[in-house]
Amino acid sequence: MPDLLSDFTDWSRFGATPAGGLDRLAAGAAHADARRWLTGRMRDLGARLRVDGVGNAFGCYEWVPGAPFVLIGSHSDSQPTAGRFDGAYGVLAALHAAARLDREVSTGAVNPEFNLAVVDWFNEEGARFQPSLMGSGACTGALDADAVLAAVDRDGVTVAAALAEAGMRGTDTPPEAVGYAEVHVEQGRLLEDSGADIGVVTRNWAVRKYTVVVHGEQSHTGATSIADRHDALLGAARVIVAARDVATSFPVDSVLSAVGRIAVAPGSPVVVASRATLDVDLRAADPADLQVAHERLAAALDAISLDGEVRVEIAACSRRPVVEFPATGVRLAEDVAEDLGIRAIRLATRAGHDAISLAARVPTVLVFVPSVAGVSHNERELTRDADLLRGVDVLTGIARALIRVPVDHTLVTHVRHS
Amino acid sequence: MPDLLSDFTDWSRFGATPAGGLDRLAAGAAHADARRWLTGRMRDLGARLRVDGVGNAFGCYEWVPGAPFVLIGSHSDSQPTAGRFDGAYGVLAALHAAARLDREVSTGAVNPEFNLAVVDWFNEEGARFQPSLMGSGACTGALDADAVLAAVDRDGVTVAAALAEAGMRGTDTPPEAVGYAEVHVEQGRLLEDSGADIGVVTRNWAVRKYTVVVHGEQSHTGATSIADRHDALLGAARVIVAARDVATSFPVDSVLSAVGRIAVAPGSPVVVASRATLDVDLRAADPADLQVAHERLAAALDAISLDGEVRVEIAACSRRPVVEFPATGVRLAEDVAEDLGIRAIRLATRAGHDAISLAARVPTVLVFVPSVAGVSHNERELTRDADLLRGVDVLTGIARALIRVPVDHTLVTHVRHS
Repeated sequence: MPDLLSDFTDWSRFGATPAGGLDRLAAGAAHADARRWLTGRMRDLGARLRVDGVGNAFGCYEWVPGAPFVLIGSHSDSQPTAGRFDGAYGVLAALHAAARLDREVSTGAVNPEFNLAVVDWFNEEGARFQPSLMGSGACTGALDADAVLAAVDRDGVTVAAALAEAGMRGTDTPPEAVGYAEVHVEQGRLLEDSGADIGVVTRNWAVRKYTVVVHGEQSHTGATSIADRHDALLGAARVIVAARDVATSFPVDSVLSAVGRIAVAPGSPVVVASRATLDVDLRAADPADLQVAHERLAAALDAISLDGEVRVEIAACSRRPVVEFPATGVRLAEDVAEDLGIRAIRLATRAGHDAISLAARVPTVLVFVPSVAGVSHNERELTRDADLLRGVDVLTGIARALIRVPVDHTLVTHVRHS
Repeated sequence: MPDLLSDFTDWSRFGATPAGGLDRLAAGAAHADARRWLTGRMRDLGARLRVDGVGNAFGCYEWVPGAPFVLIGSHSDSQPTAGRFDGAYGVLAALHAAARLDREVSTGAVNPEFNLAVVDWFNEEGARFQPSLMGSGACTGALDADAVLAAVDRDGVTVAAALAEAGMRGTDTPPEAVGYAEVHVEQGRLLEDSGADIGVVTRNWAVRKYTVVVHGEQSHTGATSIADRHDALLGAARVIVAARDVATSFPVDSVLSAVGRIAVAPGSPVVVASRATLDVDLRAADPADLQVAHERLAAALDAISLDGEVRVEIAACSRRPVVEFPATGVRLAEDVAEDLGIRAIRLATRAGHDAISLAARVPTVLVFVPSVAGVSHNERELTRDADLLRGVDVLTGIARALIRVPVDHTLVTHVRHS
């Protein structure tokens, strides 16, 4: 009987940081090592490996020859200097749930109608290569596989080249999916604040991600009169402040915004910047709020341009619509928790997850386990052992139901565009 | 008779950009090529080469064995995507002035009391390696040579390693200097606006350069509540805006400020930044104004910290005091211009120049030629041929006087600390 906690400790070594976190960028050396360890573990636990053309790895348990698969899993890539639990826990929880169900099937305790596969989706984070949810998006058709493979990191390395280098690109056909379930650490404090042990996700927040380019003109920081300056970095600073002001112009936590990355050219201490590129992230629980926030942001950028020193351009904007997870799936998760004597609450996810990609295609269930103080994308991220084990129990119960019962056709998802 | 204009066209090929500018970072491949071309040209024109341990190259004309040297020159490194004239023109103008005087000495038209050396100072710009005025500062003792050689670029390459790689590090003793003269393109519009052809520099602006570090905490751009954020990039944006506000709180062009470079960690689209490092540049004509500007900036940074989201720290601050160039040198330059029928005006320099390093040690003369529209640190930087040639004539006249007349001991510099 494999032990999830010891497996998690072992797996967390790949990309471990001195501060106890993880630095496992998609298709980097540490991620390649982690993937090798995982696929070896899949084989140890009786799964047959399939790797598709965009770096998704599937550990397949084919109990019913020819039948489609229920998929359970998450992702093993991380942000830079991130926590150990984000994604990695969900993949390992799925592997242990699947191993448990494989024993139940072999002893005849469970008679499955569908097969089961554990999946490690490629590049959920979108830290090294954009967009995020890359592997799950390509697998479900939301993203074009060729475009995904051509995406480059800041050094100009393509996804295709990085996957080949990491030995993470395959040629297998992904298992046909009839359903998906995922357990993930909550990236917030709702569970901790409410005292619940499991969060059942009913929907996700609406998101818009912008690439904003500020056009200025290169000049001398010391010699150029203020009147002659077109300072792209100053313009970028005004955009960053405006993005925060847009969020705080709404009721607390109904709209969130941030700028996570900035690139400045030419970037010399004595040169006024000619160009700045910003990644702006705007999210809202209500798509109507997001639309208003978008209009306020666009107006703020126009005002900065009108000031005359720089020209601000929204070079690109990608949207993540609200996906309502199927009500029967939410009730299933609640029933499983209740049977296990675990207190569950319903919540919406602010963050993106591979389950959102899948929910647009097949009936999908997403559950959260608590994360101490809601710390996320930080080396201090922590989920307690008892919560890790409860999450495996809940995921096992959900998967047990999904492989036995023909998927309820009311398990259809509703997408609201913002 | 070598032609300055054709030499300048030839030399500008090293590091030339498609837009007609120059990208010749200190000790980079293009700079190494430019240095090789220059030292070859020095030899063609009868100078004996000396290269010191910090990458300064001297083309020496030793007419009076054992006598000290008057130095004339500038620098051949550039900012990224910069203009062709900044520094490079001054080095080549000095070489052509020296060649002209060498002929006058050889024909007996001039009887020098001192020798003459053309100098190409290493890393005046401070773009790749900080601080700026590196070679001239090390040569005059303002900077410690060992500290200079240990300075690293953003890839961790030391000056010592870069100089060795570029073949630009020597072992020669620099010629003993009794005086210095430099011609440089003006990095402003005072000459153009006044219609004068030559600017005689009386003093430099007071400068403070700060390394400001903003300390935040890494978190999720989408999932983290605004109340839980410690966004280092947002704090940095407020610092950038504050730096501009400090400058504009003074009468027009009496105080200048800018942030030229920012480094953000970890720099992922979906991660709130944990740390941002900024290069802040503050300058004033009057040291008293600079002191007030410093106090306003420090108060603004404290206010950002007091807001509680981030902690702003001034990690380092370097000062450039005001140097008054010797009045007799100013009059000498004006007399030379008058004899040539060239209209000269007096002005102060906002930008740093190697002449400021030298002026703290030996009697120094610095003159400017016009730069169209005052464009500087930009590929569009332009000085017209007639102005380039006038600059050589004036520098020749100044050097002719300095090598003949024992240096007036009233040629002492006065330094005012800010």
